[in-house]
Amino acid sequence: MSRFGDATAVRPLGDGRYEADLDPGYGFAEAINGGYLVAVLARAAVEASPHAHPVSTATNFLRVAKPGPAELIVEERKTGRTAAMSRVTLVQDDRPVVDALITTGTLDADVEPTWTGEKPPAMPAVEDCRTFASGKGDRGFADNVEMEFDPASMGWLDGNPSGRPEARAWFRLPGYENDAFALALAVDALPPVVLSMGAKGWAPTVELTWHMRAVPAPGWLAVHGSGRLVTGGWFDEEVEIWDSAGRLVAQSRQLARVGRA
Amino acid sequence: MSRFGDATAVRPLGDGRYEADLDPGYGFAEAINGGYLVAVLARAAVEASPHAHPVSTATNFLRVAKPGPAELIVEERKTGRTAAMSRVTLVQDDRPVVDALITTGTLDADVEPTWTGEKPPAMPAVEDCRTFASGKGDRGFADNVEMEFDPASMGWLDGNPSGRPEARAWFRLPGYENDAFALALAVDALPPVVLSMGAKGWAPTVELTWHMRAVPAPGWLAVHGSGRLVTGGWFDEEVEIWDSAGRLVAQSRQLARVGRA
Repeated sequence: MSRFGDATAVRPLGDGRYEADLDPGYGFAEAINGGYLVAVLARAAVEASPHAHPVSTATNFLRVAKPGPAELIVEERKTGRTAAMSRVTLVQDDRPVVDALITTGTLDADVEPTWTGEKPPAMPAVEDCRTFASGKGDRGFADNVEMEFDPASMGWLDGNPSGRPEARAWFRLPGYENDAFALALAVDALPPVVLSMGAKGWAPTVELTWHMRAVPAPGWLAVHGSGRLVTGGWFDEEVEIWDSAGRLVAQSRQLARVGRA
Repeated sequence: MSRFGDATAVRPLGDGRYEADLDPGYGFAEAINGGYLVAVLARAAVEASPHAHPVSTATNFLRVAKPGPAELIVEERKTGRTAAMSRVTLVQDDRPVVDALITTGTLDADVEPTWTGEKPPAMPAVEDCRTFASGKGDRGFADNVEMEFDPASMGWLDGNPSGRPEARAWFRLPGYENDAFALALAVDALPPVVLSMGAKGWAPTVELTWHMRAVPAPGWLAVHGSGRLVTGGWFDEEVEIWDSAGRLVAQSRQLARVGRA
């Protein structure tokens, strides 16, 4: 199994409870990545559901998650033919760390869209993008997630922020086929879009909702992040993910706090 | 008190429980409006919180709500200086009808945005828009909510759908000052955006998340609905609300099912 598969595995304990072991390889100095936690929550919801895909996941981030054991509690709230709904909580040390509302459904990989809006925004070719190593061997997020960043959205790294909330990258997971759980990680994998406005430091996510819209094709995923409003220390970050077949496969929005360096 | 104020009032029962009386005047033939339910949920969350505003509300719609008594259960999950988080459920007949994750915070009505993106899209003047009466006296949604629709987004009513998912209207509540709860209603007040693609019938919301971004100024609110993808019977609907001062005050996205006429 791949590292990401192992890192998001959940083992049933009965009565809608599951255990997981949170891998520090999907964290940064400050905290475990939120998208990784969302992938673990979604894995538990799908395990407990008759349906195959987490079509809607809304999450409140209550506390910082730590590497190591965690428990998932899945409460089934309604099970229907088209969709099933549950409340899912990730617990550590007897305290809720992330609360989620998850709706599962079964998407048809072969269905053609009835209507689709804009095409994916232009991105430089993968070979014209920038990558980064964590310098931590296999222990850092950048070592376990392949991302190639659009240089036009990364000027802030060199002291030249673009002045707009934005971040764009190609994304794939080493040795792991694209699926719902890879998408869950990808919607929260970009650096906070306010860094490109000159903000510094970690920007804690308060709430993140994402929708899985299609079964992703293999290959690189294009991950486009933007924002609409930064005010009173709050900002929104929208992420759209397009697969190698040019299809919109995921949409997310998060509300987060601007970091204080 | 105004009808909307009465209709969304919650009375404490102790232990984080509240009672409400759902007003059929905010419903359609098929069901009570989802945004109205979100307003009632948010009212309970704010009552239980030290903060003034529901900055983030994510909801799963489990069952159709009926007019009449309902109970709200608020579980406080984390209370901080900047934000407080709760799980809130609307219950009828001992069954959960709507599950929500609500984050409250206190927005400063006088703060100037740090950064703001596009200006509000162009809308025809209120007097150049179309309005509709329910024909039901005071019993219908259209009689208790003032909406003036952009004719360019309403061609479907005359058998000429625009072919794009869209809906736009001016919105205000008779005798009720704009606030967080009016915004909660407004984010789900438009006709489903897929009607402008020729779809028919009620389009049940599965999940809706909205973020309150600013304290709205008095006057008409401009409510802009759009969508990105319709596929496999699922569609997304994004709503942005702009106040009379030209500020983005609310953002929402919902995932819903295309109606079957």
